Amino acid sequence: MSAKSLKIAVIGVGLIGGSLARALKRQGITEKIIGVARKTQTLDKAMELGVIDQAEMDPANLGEVDIIVIATPMRTIPSMMQAIASGLSDQTVITDVGSAKRYVVDAAFEHLKGHEHRFVPAHPIAGTEKSGVEASFVELFQGRNVILTPHQSTTQSALNQVRDMWLATGASILNMDVDEHDKALAATSHLPHMVAYALVHLLCKNSRSEELLGLAAGGFYDFTRIASSDPTMWVDISLTNRKFLVESLVQYRNELSEIVDAVESGDADTLYRVFSEAKRYRELGLRNKNDHPQEDP
Amino acid sequence: MSAKSLKIAVIGVGLIGGSLARALKRQGITEKIIGVARKTQTLDKAMELGVIDQAEMDPANLGEVDIIVIATPMRTIPSMMQAIASGLSDQTVITDVGSAKRYVVDAAFEHLKGHEHRFVPAHPIAGTEKSGVEASFVELFQGRNVILTPHQSTTQSALNQVRDMWLATGASILNMDVDEHDKALAATSHLPHMVAYALVHLLCKNSRSEELLGLAAGGFYDFTRIASSDPTMWVDISLTNRKFLVESLVQYRNELSEIVDAVESGDADTLYRVFSEAKRYRELGLRNKNDHPQEDP
Repeated sequence: MSAKSLKIAVIGVGLIGGSLARALKRQGITEKIIGVARKTQTLDKAMELGVIDQAEMDPANLGEVDIIVIATPMRTIPSMMQAIASGLSDQTVITDVGSAKRYVVDAAFEHLKGHEHRFVPAHPIAGTEKSGVEASFVELFQGRNVILTPHQSTTQSALNQVRDMWLATGASILNMDVDEHDKALAATSHLPHMVAYALVHLLCKNSRSEELLGLAAGGFYDFTRIASSDPTMWVDISLTNRKFLVESLVQYRNELSEIVDAVESGDADTLYRVFSEAKRYRELGLRNKNDHPQEDP
Repeated sequence: MSAKSLKIAVIGVGLIGGSLARALKRQGITEKIIGVARKTQTLDKAMELGVIDQAEMDPANLGEVDIIVIATPMRTIPSMMQAIASGLSDQTVITDVGSAKRYVVDAAFEHLKGHEHRFVPAHPIAGTEKSGVEASFVELFQGRNVILTPHQSTTQSALNQVRDMWLATGASILNMDVDEHDKALAATSHLPHMVAYALVHLLCKNSRSEELLGLAAGGFYDFTRIASSDPTMWVDISLTNRKFLVESLVQYRNELSEIVDAVESGDADTLYRVFSEAKRYRELGLRNKNDHPQEDP
């Protein structure tokens, strides 16, 4: 990529789309970033913050661009693909930032007819519990992993362009198989969100819910931070990675049942084994992280 | 309490016992703090750190003290009560720091025969995932709640002495009914620990567990911090608050099943309702905390 060469369209200028735009602009490798959003106030805000160079409301109206990044909520991705399909040039690479990849690959084959070989499914493992362009920041992807899950007909050149774009944000690249990604993310991210939402929801249904909040220690708020994530986004993720998420949830419920049985029967040995194995494993993960501090600061 | 008047024995000089000793010494209200532990290296360390004034290995050998604080793991509390019972003077107040209160009240009636009216069950809502006297620090209870659950025969004067001791550490006092305490703490603390241990344990059983750790985002480590808590301590807590913990676990498993069903059937409305109610409730708790920052800094 030569300096100031790229024209990039970002559809959905929220936390992820906005942070990507900021990071690319800082690298000075974009000629123009076009932001696309449904609401004029989002676009006005993004222009005002200098996140984008041009505002567009119609995704069908992007003209000649090098890369289109679809960064809207998961379940709107198929309709965005439909909207851009007719205006796509034979050079434009299409990518997304969704948390479930089989869903978007299926959508690409259905809606990007004739262009699916230039579609590169991508998933930046980054975010905060905040959302919106106001929450976007230039370092969001610094040292984070971006997983690319090329499908059977993705071209090497499209893959390279998306890889280079993400490398420019300071992220590391991992390549994974589509289903392997969805299964792994169900376990490490989607399941934990469901577990946290369920826990907080159980407390809020309690007849003494306000009193319980007062008794909760600081640890409770760390533990449940992810239950403050955007509900719409998480409805979308849970429904677009349905198969693997249900699999993970059922495994988790079985794990929990083993703990219930052990508590009920006073089986101290099983409880000790489960608790100490969990503690050891988590601490192994923390050590690995500290050995590679750039991975997740 | 006049200055330098109190003789206090702390049985179990770990994170909680050690931090209590440090906080009381700083207030200058103790004439002497006797530390009791099974291991000489714990006692040596506590003496070296200036946490205690005198080291004892035999809890039966405490002599005349004002307050005995039992701060050993929950399931050793009955045997500690047995050990101290014969040597108790009619002035000594006995208290504990355990996370389940019905269990210790039952133990007091069984083992402190004739002295149970001077036993004051107490539970400081404070801690970190670390343990041991090396992890103790003087501010641990600053702005935290200490719950007192006096039973039917606790005397007012014993209750006042234990209350004053905890107020001197900078804590706030809440009085609760014994079972009410155990039920509330099952929901806000014991259940979350089981939920976190189960989640981390499920991942560690995965055949690709190391790879999964690499994919986990920062949020995963916040979420699972409590799964690094001391396994022995949590075996004890789960088995000494068994009835209410099982009740909470079963309610939680039902809540989770509702989420499984909603994901499986693609019920976006239910998921949106659950996620947004949970988010709202958690944020209400955070706002309340911020309005009373001294409660949980």
